[in-house]
Amino acid sequence: MQNLSPEKDPVEALRASFRRHASGVSIITLLDASEAPIGFTATSMTSLGANPPLASFNVSQGSSTYSSLEVGKYVAIHTLGASTVELAQRMAADHTQRFIPADWHEGPYGVPVFPAATSILIAKIRDIHSIENNAVVIVDVVEGLAGTDDEALLYYQRSYMKPGDKI
Amino acid sequence: MQNLSPEKDPVEALRASFRRHASGVSIITLLDASEAPIGFTATSMTSLGANPPLASFNVSQGSSTYSSLEVGKYVAIHTLGASTVELAQRMAADHTQRFIPADWHEGPYGVPVFPAATSILIAKIRDIHSIENNAVVIVDVVEGLAGTDDEALLYYQRSYMKPGDKI
Repeated sequence: MQNLSPEKDPVEALRASFRRHASGVSIITLLDASEAPIGFTATSMTSLGANPPLASFNVSQGSSTYSSLEVGKYVAIHTLGASTVELAQRMAADHTQRFIPADWHEGPYGVPVFPAATSILIAKIRDIHSIENNAVVIVDVVEGLAGTDDEALLYYQRSYMKPGDKI
Repeated sequence: MQNLSPEKDPVEALRASFRRHASGVSIITLLDASEAPIGFTATSMTSLGANPPLASFNVSQGSSTYSSLEVGKYVAIHTLGASTVELAQRMAADHTQRFIPADWHEGPYGVPVFPAATSILIAKIRDIHSIENNAVVIVDVVEGLAGTDDEALLYYQRSYMKPGDKI
């Protein structure tokens, strides 16, 4: 049995571990208090059971979107494809430059929808669970929209990637 | 702007969406009340901020592991590599057959550690947030162990995969 080299600094341990971990890439969108579209790129979006259909994502309380997230509000969760890497980058950069008119339209419940996504879930915020400077947002999925056929978009080792070979 | 085909059934919408979404694969381990090793394969493990270093994962309340998860207990979070697909499969199958003596040893705080993982985080359960038949488990990372160098393991379209090309 090999000896494993310890990393006693938990911050460095977390960073080292997540460099080894790949994630799917999503975009979360909603309307702010003035009904302007807001949103962000997330690598934390995941299912929380199908019966009832629930999903969760994490958000920093320092983000431009956080103050607009409220229980009962609707959001759109977009799974992204490999051809939308520029959209993923733009939705993670300057928050005043994220929504280009040609990219999105108003979807169910008024939420901003990007049709270039591979799928879109329309969901209602059930719970915002605050932890330190972050929050876990739990949503009830209420319906979906088919998106654009494409391979999944991954984020791994600080790069965007496509899925590779099956094992 | 293209028209998007709606899926009004939220369960089917969730399933269709997560077929388009790729995930990194992790294994969570801990000791049960009799100090036997238990654990499971997770595709929901994600970071919840680096300051302080936190992670989260989702678990079904019907799983064999759920009743052993308690605030204050230690767990090991393993990021998996492409060469450990059999371990990922075994930790998602019959829960009485998951731990083969040659695969694991006792790590910090007694938690079961698989050295074949690409990295291991030792973490303490801070909060178990119950939602319907599932729970979001939030942990404080306390230290880490370097694992085995390998490409990441992905789960996508019901298959295990390697990461592909950078975009």
